Amino acid sequence: NHIVLIGNAESIVSAARKLQQLGRDYVVLTSSKILYEELKGDNVILGDPKDESNLISAGVKKASAAIIAMDDDSETLLVTLRVQKLNPPLKVVTMVKDISMVDIMKTAGADVVIPYEDIMGRMLAFASLSDSFAGIIYSSREREYSIGVFDVKKGIKLKDLPPRVIPIAILRDGHLDPYFDKETEVKPGESLFVLGDPSAFKEVEKLLS
Amino acid sequence: NHIVLIGNAESIVSAARKLQQLGRDYVVLTSSKILYEELKGDNVILGDPKDESNLISAGVKKASAAIIAMDDDSETLLVTLRVQKLNPPLKVVTMVKDISMVDIMKTAGADVVIPYEDIMGRMLAFASLSDSFAGIIYSSREREYSIGVFDVKKGIKLKDLPPRVIPIAILRDGHLDPYFDKETEVKPGESLFVLGDPSAFKEVEKLLS
Ligand SMILES: [Ca+2]
Ligand SMILES: [Ca+2]
Repeated sequence: NHIVLIGNAESIVSAARKLQQLGRDYVVLTSSKILYEELKGDNVILGDPKDESNLISAGVKKASAAIIAMDDDSETLLVTLRVQKLNPPLKVVTMVKDISMVDIMKTAGADVVIPYEDIMGRMLAFASLSDSFAGIIYSSREREYSIGVFDVKKGIKLKDLPPRVIPIAILRDGHLDPYFDKETEVKPGESLFVLGDPSAFKEVEKLLS
Repeated sequence: NHIVLIGNAESIVSAARKLQQLGRDYVVLTSSKILYEELKGDNVILGDPKDESNLISAGVKKASAAIIAMDDDSETLLVTLRVQKLNPPLKVVTMVKDISMVDIMKTAGADVVIPYEDIMGRMLAFASLSDSFAGIIYSSREREYSIGVFDVKKGIKLKDLPPRVIPIAILRDGHLDPYFDKETEVKPGESLFVLGDPSAFKEVEKLLS
């Protein structure tokens, strides 16, 4: 019931470290000696991800999910097809450079396809509009939301926030508290997490400082 | 008071479209004919971003912020240094492939540096653990949070959520509502937004279906 990470993109290392931190079992299959050295240990296999026998050695047939991230979109597609053939119901998560690859990747059997150039562009735009931009919700059916995190230097009541900004949690004493009402006051030393249009974040910064 | 977008990475196109959607003024400077064609219009300049006169034409001296995203990290560094020289107080937002570039980019004058391979890797890990993974808060000083969005098929009270999952908003009738308490019931047809460990998201899916 492990997760198989397949590919030569550096993101494979960052994914492996996050899974380790979350206490999940994983096996990495990469043909990159650099990634192999970075991840050195008994759960990394050096071998060509396009080779079926290597995919089987990595446990593709009994894994709970596969992450596929090659340096090149067409190789990611090829590996996805091979993995899909070996284990059709397996959950496959991939990243591609080019957003126009998303449909064909899904046809090839990928369940989640993250088009990184597109997502990064939107993050750059949000970050250019506000220093408080801290994250995004990118895959809501409805629309995209950006998230801001603000250090509170001056207390305000939540009802005084601009209308385009929605408070979602207050960080106090290391704990996130989502239960509050419009009369709740955020206090110096706390952090306020919000959803909203980053164009409105400057106004929030002013209110809180 | 416009934003200058500088570079050859495809993310520049996605950033420009997001700024347009948010109603912000921008100018693009790119030496990529492909990007130039994609963005064709009076606010895109075809020219080498490493050339000071092109940077001045794009308005780097009077912009409110610059987004810099070249295909190659060392070129992003070079352009950042040139922009910094022309307008030292300008807010500069960049993306780099390699996370080890972050410090040197900041030394060169970048205010925000987004290391995309690292962020993408963590998104891949989160997505492999849950179909409901929908976004991240990546730049909180405290720690990283992942966000889940769930369609409610069966009503539950918020106090029945697993302890590692924090409700942040309820989407009903197209509106996000952040004001609720532990006794609040989410109802079929609504969507629930949460913060938490994606390992716990499967349990939430079960509760809500
Ligand atoms: Ca599949
Ligand atoms: Ca600067």
